[in-house]
Amino acid sequence: MTGGRLQIFGLSGIGEITPTTDLSQVIAAAATGSDAIVDGDVVVVTQKIVSKAEGRLARLADDDPHGRRIVEDESHLVLRRRGELVISQTRHGFICANAGVDLSNVDAGWAALLPEDPDRSARQIRDGLRHHTGAEVAVIVSDTFGRVWRRGVTDVAIGCAGIGAILDLRGTGDAGGRELAVTEVAVVDEIAGAAELVMGKATSVPVAVVRGVDRSWFRRGEVRAEIVRPPDEDLFR
Amino acid sequence: MTGGRLQIFGLSGIGEITPTTDLSQVIAAAATGSDAIVDGDVVVVTQKIVSKAEGRLARLADDDPHGRRIVEDESHLVLRRRGELVISQTRHGFICANAGVDLSNVDAGWAALLPEDPDRSARQIRDGLRHHTGAEVAVIVSDTFGRVWRRGVTDVAIGCAGIGAILDLRGTGDAGGRELAVTEVAVVDEIAGAAELVMGKATSVPVAVVRGVDRSWFRRGEVRAEIVRPPDEDLFR
Repeated sequence: MTGGRLQIFGLSGIGEITPTTDLSQVIAAAATGSDAIVDGDVVVVTQKIVSKAEGRLARLADDDPHGRRIVEDESHLVLRRRGELVISQTRHGFICANAGVDLSNVDAGWAALLPEDPDRSARQIRDGLRHHTGAEVAVIVSDTFGRVWRRGVTDVAIGCAGIGAILDLRGTGDAGGRELAVTEVAVVDEIAGAAELVMGKATSVPVAVVRGVDRSWFRRGEVRAEIVRPPDEDLFR
Repeated sequence: MTGGRLQIFGLSGIGEITPTTDLSQVIAAAATGSDAIVDGDVVVVTQKIVSKAEGRLARLADDDPHGRRIVEDESHLVLRRRGELVISQTRHGFICANAGVDLSNVDAGWAALLPEDPDRSARQIRDGLRHHTGAEVAVIVSDTFGRVWRRGVTDVAIGCAGIGAILDLRGTGDAGGRELAVTEVAVVDEIAGAAELVMGKATSVPVAVVRGVDRSWFRRGEVRAEIVRPPDEDLFR
């Protein structure tokens, strides 16, 4: 006997993305046949191609080949430094390495910055996918973050649209009927991580589709409003 | 055109677990028909039923109905306290709320403790599944942890067997052929989070199967050796 069921598949054939690319059109075109985007799909788009489509790129100065000054510019507040590593808070409130600035998978001499407002980016892609496919989907913009107490990186959501970022199961009761203390699940982060499993890192699969999520999760949602922890709740800065 | 492809489904009908339960036998019996466990599956088992099968339960004292003393006993080192919340390091090296002690989904008057050695638990379940099904699978024992800088909880791996905890893509080069800086992906955490999406919190689905992961990920692996971050690497304690 089985519970819920998900399918997750990557979309390849996305090609090079520039500020003139209609990203949602390219995504819709890459999803064909039985993989065509349908109502209820969650489309996970990596930050890198969103930043490229939005022109969020900065040229590296000759005297700053690793973009250290760009990292400082993108940091609202630097929390820790160790060697080349900078852990900082971005203007969005994310705390991550190098303020999300990334030199991989961009043209030599350029750095990719985080989108200005990744929740807005997700909403725009969602609107575009509705226009190009007719489907009502949710969209997650994902990025790769480290963790304080666990080695290895995982993909998390930096923006979302059409899906609650956190699913509140608080007080729905456990199987024994008693109250559950804390069960506010960051489903958009779990979906972003799941999508990463079919993307790999160097395989030109910057978009994945997660099919079969509970329809009750589809609502207005925002990573910034729901997931970013306010400084006064933070016990470790 | 599509990249990789995963199927994720939950197994219900697991029933109540006690120290006399053969957990792998029960899991094998719950996976039937096209959902029968096959070579290459990753079987994700929630900590709660592993702890129950291993008898890792503690009776709550009359004067300690919320198990505060048990949390202190299970804590190797308390890092922060705020109100009822204790963030501590367990003997395994995990840093989590209440040292992983949990009163939900256990009999009234009892608390569930983390398994003594969750990697060993995963190996035992893997051996049992091989015995009962003939299939070579990977096993992940999952638990629900909070995050320092992000609201909401996600499921992560506390033990694994038959799969690398971290997939090292460092230096495989990005799509442009240049070196990638850090791409050590904690795939067992991403798989644990993905499995949670089909489990819910109160729906008696304590096991999920993830089908279709890259076979090259199947190797000897351990959460404790690979993912637990040594204190000298920790910039935030």
